[in-house]
This record gives sequence, C-alpha cells and structure tokens, in this order.
Amino acid sequence: MLQEELVAVDTETRGGITLAKGFRAIGIHCGVKKAKKDLALIVSDVPAVAAAVFTLNKVQAAPVVLSKQHFGMRKTFRAIVVNSGNANACTGEKGYEDACTMADVTAEALGVSPSEVFVASTGVIGERLPIERVSNGIRAASALLNEAEHESAAEAIMTTDTFKKVATATFEIGGRTVNIGGIAKGSGMIHPNMATMLGFITTDATFEHDIFQALVKSVVDKTFNRIVVDGDTSTNDMVVALANGESGIAPLQPGTDSFMQFSLQLERVLKQLAIDIVRDGEGATKLVEIRVEGALSDTDAVKAAKSVALSPLVKTAIHGEDANWGRVIAAVGYSGIDFDPTKFEIVINDVPILQQDFTVTLSNQEANKCLKGEFVELVIKLHHGLGKATVWTCDFSEQYVVINGGYRS
Amino acid sequence: MLQEELVAVDTETRGGITLAKGFRAIGIHCGVKKAKKDLALIVSDVPAVAAAVFTLNKVQAAPVVLSKQHFGMRKTFRAIVVNSGNANACTGEKGYEDACTMADVTAEALGVSPSEVFVASTGVIGERLPIERVSNGIRAASALLNEAEHESAAEAIMTTDTFKKVATATFEIGGRTVNIGGIAKGSGMIHPNMATMLGFITTDATFEHDIFQALVKSVVDKTFNRIVVDGDTSTNDMVVALANGESGIAPLQPGTDSFMQFSLQLERVLKQLAIDIVRDGEGATKLVEIRVEGALSDTDAVKAAKSVALSPLVKTAIHGEDANWGRVIAAVGYSGIDFDPTKFEIVINDVPILQQDFTVTLSNQEANKCLKGEFVELVIKLHHGLGKATVWTCDFSEQYVVINGGYRS
Repeated sequence: MLQEELVAVDTETRGGITLAKGFRAIGIHCGVKKAKKDLALIVSDVPAVAAAVFTLNKVQAAPVVLSKQHFGMRKTFRAIVVNSGNANACTGEKGYEDACTMADVTAEALGVSPSEVFVASTGVIGERLPIERVSNGIRAASALLNEAEHESAAEAIMTTDTFKKVATATFEIGGRTVNIGGIAKGSGMIHPNMATMLGFITTDATFEHDIFQALVKSVVDKTFNRIVVDGDTSTNDMVVALANGESGIAPLQPGTDSFMQFSLQLERVLKQLAIDIVRDGEGATKLVEIRVEGALSDTDAVKAAKSVALSPLVKTAIHGEDANWGRVIAAVGYSGIDFDPTKFEIVINDVPILQQDFTVTLSNQEANKCLKGEFVELVIKLHHGLGKATVWTCDFSEQYVVINGGYRS
Repeated sequence: MLQEELVAVDTETRGGITLAKGFRAIGIHCGVKKAKKDLALIVSDVPAVAAAVFTLNKVQAAPVVLSKQHFGMRKTFRAIVVNSGNANACTGEKGYEDACTMADVTAEALGVSPSEVFVASTGVIGERLPIERVSNGIRAASALLNEAEHESAAEAIMTTDTFKKVATATFEIGGRTVNIGGIAKGSGMIHPNMATMLGFITTDATFEHDIFQALVKSVVDKTFNRIVVDGDTSTNDMVVALANGESGIAPLQPGTDSFMQFSLQLERVLKQLAIDIVRDGEGATKLVEIRVEGALSDTDAVKAAKSVALSPLVKTAIHGEDANWGRVIAAVGYSGIDFDPTKFEIVINDVPILQQDFTVTLSNQEANKCLKGEFVELVIKLHHGLGKATVWTCDFSEQYVVINGGYRS
C-alpha cells in the first residue's frame, strides 16, 4: 500500500532526470563536502541501452577509467553513481580501488552487476575520496530512490555551479509519449571535448546500442563540445545517456521521421544544458553566441569560432562592452583557417560593426551600445565558402580571477 | 667642429639600440598619440645585413606586408621606421599606401631607397594613420638622429608597456669590440609566433645574409617565441635585426668559436627582452618560468610548457598563490603529448609539490608558501624521455581584465 501511494505521488512530480518512465533518482549529502549535497544516484528499473562520451585529456580520473572499462564490456546499464566535491583524479591505484568500491556498493545495494554501473566524480584533484562515507551514502541513497527526487540529484552533482542545470522534452512517437530528461554540471574549465563537465541523459525511447551511441556522440559534438569558458579541459568529464525503452515504442531507426524527431529533441535538450553551463561560467555576466558563416568548411568555421571564443582579449572586451572588432579579426587570423580579410564582416546583435573592405560606419560609442545586454550574438561572415558553425561562450570578468585564484583556499 | 663635439658626447652616451657602432636613432612625438612619444627611427650609417621574422597571423597589417615585400627584394637595409598608437591593420588599400608613404618619406629624408626601409606599427586596429602628421614627424626625426637618442627610441615604440625594454651586450672577437643592442615592446597579447610584439636588434658584427637570418630565426624561436601572456597572436609583430659590420671583424661563420660566442650573447639579449615583455604583461604580478624536462622530444616539451603557460586556471591559481598542481597536470594532459601521469613530478621554487605516483607530502598551506615571491620557477619532470623546454609567462590578475575591458574607452 505504501508503495502504491508513493507511486501515485511520484507520477505527478516526475521531472528532469526522472521524467522518462522507469527512472528513479536521489541526491543526498554523504560527507565529501561539508554540508551541501554531494552524492547522486540515477537508476533505470530495467536494463537501459547506454551511450557515453569521455574526456580526451591524457590524464583521466579513476571513475573515467573504470566507466570506460564498463562501457567496453557491455551495452546496457542500470545505474549512474556520482559524487561531487572530490574528482578522484591523480589518486593512483588507491583511487581506482575507490572508484571500484563505488560501483560495487551501488551494484550490491541495487542487486545488479558492478559492470552495469557508471561511476562519475567531480571536484578537487589529487585527494583521496572519503570512501567509507561515500559507501555509506550510496547505501542510504539507494533506499531513497524515487521518481520525484530529480531536483536533489541535479543539485548533488554541482560544484562551483550557482544553479541547477536541467532540461527535458516530451513528445509523441507512434501515438506513445516519449520523454527525455537531462541534468548537467559545469562552470569553470568548460571547453570542447568534454572539459570538467558532467551530463546525464535519460530517455524512455527504444534504441539499438550502436545507433544510440552514434546519435549521442554527434549531438554532443554540436552542443557540449561547442561551449568554451576558459579553454581548460578536465580529467573527469563524461556524458552518459541511458535509453530504457519504457515508452514502449519500437527501436528508432535512422532515416525515419521518428528518428529525426527524437534527434531534434535530444539536440534541444543538450543545447539547453550546454548553454546553461556557459551562462553559469565562473564570473560570467554575458552569454555570447558566436556564429561563423561562409568558411571554406564547417571544420574551418568551428576552428574560427573557437579561436574567437577562447581569446581572452575578445572576452574582456565584451565584458567591458567594447565592440573591438580588431580583436575578433585577429583571433580568426591566428585560428589557422583560410579566408580573405577584406571580405570579413561582423554583425553584433543585428548591428553591422564591420563591413567588407574594413568599412566601419558607426562610431565606437554607437557600436558599443550593441553589447549592453546580457546576450551577445556575434556573427562573423567570411564570404569564402559554405561552412558554418555556432559556439557558445561567456565574457571574462574580474570575478573569474577572484574565484579561480582562491578555489582551494 | 659642432659635429666633432657631438660625436664626442655621443660616444659617452651610446647605449641600447645605438650601442653598436654606426647606428643612430631618435624617438619623438608626432601626433598619433595625444602627448606621448609615438615615432621612432633607427638608422645604420652604412648598408646593414638584415634578418627578420614576421607574425604568422593570417591577417597582416599593412606595414608587415610592405616590410615582407622589401625583405624579399634585398638583403641589406638602412633604416627602421616605427609608429606606436595606431597599428595600421585592417585598413585596406589606403592603409597600405600609408605604409608606403612612411617608407618613401623616410627614404627621401635619409637619401636611401624606400626598399631599404623596414616599416612597423603598433596600436589600435582598424583606424587610418594620421599620415600627414607621421610624414612630418619622420622628416623632423631624421634631422634629430643621434647616437645618444637610444632612450627616446625605446620609449617611442611603447603602447601599454609600463617600462622601456632594452638589453645590450659588449664582447671581444679577434681583439675587436663587438656590440649588440636591442629594444622591444610588448605587454598584452604576448604569445609565441610573434604576437603583438616588436623587437629591433642592432649589431656591428659582420655577417653574410643567410647565416644571419638562420641565426636570428633560431634565437627568436628560443626566446620571443617562448613567451606567453594571454595566447592572442597579433597582426603586426616583427623582429628585425641589422648587422652593419662596423666592428671591423670578418664575417662570422657557423662552427667557429666566434660564431658560438656571438650566438650566446644574442640569445642573452633576446632572452632579456622577452622576459621583460612577460614581466610587463598587462596586470602581471609574477614572472613564471615553466621548465618541462623528460618529455619524449623537445617539441613535446614545448607543447606541454605552452599548454600550462596558456591555462587561465593555472595562471589565476599562481596569482592567488595556490600551488594547485591538479591544474598543472590537467593542462599537460590536454596538451596532446604522450606521457605517464604516474611519473609526473612538480617542483616549484625548489619545493617538491608533487612526487611520482601522485605522492604529496606537503599540506596545501605549506605548498602555497613557495608562490609568495615575484618569481615562480615551475619545473615539470615527466621521466618519459630527454626532451626539454623553457617557456616564460606571467600570472593572470583582476587587473588584466580591467585593462583589456577598457582599452579603447
């Protein structure tokens, strides 16, 4: 009876990472951090097809090493266990044993195999996990798993984040409701190729493993891998997606309308999470969308956009509301791509800042007005080919230095 | 008589860019800037063998384009004309004409060919030069050329620099005195491959062109191209060296002791200029020397060192006097080089911060003490091969953001 009552309540309060049917979650405080929530569990009631993308940093934290091993062994998973406050990175063999312990304790508590568990950690590098506390926390958390606890799970994966990142989508495929839910953590060190960023996605859609992996990888490339805060790439990052088929739809096949629909919704969810990570960049006061058009190829467009997004000179100019187009053209200039500088055009929030042949029609004062708001759309037109790309970043404030100068103090 | 008297005075006050025999210089205010000196002339009394290295930015300022054309046409030069306050970059055909005018007016005033003149500019991008004022300035300056005016020349090439960068060397080769003098400007946007950096070197040594060019290029690679402030690479940078043979020595030949001696002295001069540029990085409070040892190759060592030097997270940690070795190892991790993280060692100012197998013996408080001073020697030992490299950078302060957020305001 008690269980039935709980289910009734939970159905109304599903959301976020538990919006998709058949997923439960929980976030608690286990004692890695002083007082804040620091442990999250995400569980699928049935084996879920998994997709995963891991950091490309040569130095990979123990949980990344272990999760990659598990992902190499099997296609379906049951759980994701995450701690924040400690990255379990650069902790040697003992750290690897701690990551194994997290998987083992989770598996035992849920009655699944350790290899069905993804392990993730985020926080300070080089310190051992308080593994006893984490283990006790996992046992306590597993008893609290619940469809309604999506908020606490989103909160428990945060480090310097100032707000929870959650995005969802609900739509119909073949008359059945399909849900996608995602949570993420970021802020600081955000950079393409999975830098200090954790993203967890659940869906009740149905997929074959290879198709799901290819889809998630390509969507991550267009979203999480297109955000830049400071260019540092971390040792711990991963995106894990679980598709458990509980919507009851048939496996989605590339080339079908249903597959296209799901892909668009998945991209929408990941894009929202990615942009929220940028918006919460350490010390950020402005969200900057950089669109490069007319490059020789999409690859060139990405290179140019990232070069601009990474330039401290561009980022400080945007912070100071100085439409300093010279710094933008210089950053594209050293990106390594081919283009004709005399065809370069810059449009910021619909205001033409620079036209071809280096024509400037606005005074600095007039031009700078376009940077007043919290959103900056910086469009670079190269008129050199058909390649285009979008990258998101934030401005660079004094506050970034303050936060990162004293992170461990 | 007057001239003799002047020579007598000048001999006593030679120095900097006019230390080498047969060079004269001057720096004046011509009206590009409001009140500060903004025009420098450096002249050799006889044709001097030239060596030059130019920015690799795809967008090259008009003076760079013109100087490269001149350098492609001939091996000996007579003059370098430099303005500060305006970069004459992204100024189209008119800007190119302005650069030509600078060469033409200089040539006419000195009675040499325009192709014997290097033209350099530094300052704001995208605005036309006040070419009338610059031309009048060049004419006025040419009448003031003097062996004693090395300080005013060093001052006139400055932009946001807070002090003049000057270095010299005097030594004997075959019983004759040989001099090297150099001046540079930097601060902000300092980065390998000639980023917003001007360096001018004069020597009375004797060289064949190809040998001098190869030597200067290799020394620039180990000095100016090993400094990093913020990773931005500019449209305007160049290093020009002139060797006029006025010491009377025979042409220096590779493989001889004299050549080795000159090379070492040249490296010492360029290294001092390069380090002064870093020391004067915008908002810098600490000079950081990053030495990587034990990489697979020197190339790998440079990659690793630059990755650390460019990391905003490392630079803000050093500013905050936080010996955060996790950020250092992460930055090497994403540099793309091969190494074994468990063999990683970090020594800061002789204090072992991280030993192999991720062993840490100091508390954070103890470790942080090594960062108290103004000089930070950060040694990274990879124990993976024999490759090594040194790179210089500075910390990243709130002041950097303040300076660069309001540069044009």
